[in-house]
Amino acid sequence: MTDSRFAKNLEAPYYAVIFTSQRSSGDNGYSRTVERMTALAAQQPGYLGIESTRNAEGFGITVSYWASLEAIAAWRANAAHRVAQETGQSTWYEHYELRVAKVERVYASKLPNR
Amino acid sequence: MTDSRFAKNLEAPYYAVIFTSQRSSGDNGYSRTVERMTALAAQQPGYLGIESTRNAEGFGITVSYWASLEAIAAWRANAAHRVAQETGQSTWYEHYELRVAKVERVYASKLPNR
Repeated sequence: MTDSRFAKNLEAPYYAVIFTSQRSSGDNGYSRTVERMTALAAQQPGYLGIESTRNAEGFGITVSYWASLEAIAAWRANAAHRVAQETGQSTWYEHYELRVAKVERVYASKLPNR
Repeated sequence: MTDSRFAKNLEAPYYAVIFTSQRSSGDNGYSRTVERMTALAAQQPGYLGIESTRNAEGFGITVSYWASLEAIAAWRANAAHRVAQETGQSTWYEHYELRVAKVERVYASKLPNR
């Protein structure tokens, strides 16, 4: 269970999209859209993985990993994703920040005992 | 309340340290150390901000922001921080990944209504 939450086997350099957000109250179709967008993102060229979590107060961080800036731009322009982005802007989030960063190195990791 | 959870007024380029982790069970001094390390990090040269969240299953993402790779290396080598890193490795985390990335641009943000 733990393992699927971590993006794995990534080789630097690659890109990270850091999305930090505060949810507004009420679901308003959010959960279903997150499932659909997560599945759709995974089908995009250049998609490498995703890590996401949110606390009980609705403050969340999602980091998705991509092979190139072009892959990020293509996903950003995806029609279904654009609809979701618009509802995110209007309805689901009180506040968000979206940053694009180039992962240059991995400093450390600890893997679970098996 | 929401606002203090977001890192603000950052001007690209800067660096992000993306720390993704699964907590093990039991506190074992973790909460107190997080408070101390968060306060100590904020005093380091080149510290720009931090965003952090963890869900009920103990899966967390913390992103700290820094002015340079040198600032990150100095914080990583800080003596008190090294003690915390060792206990993190041995006790507090089942699994973690630590990535360093250069934030090249900010795509979008939505600020809360005031």
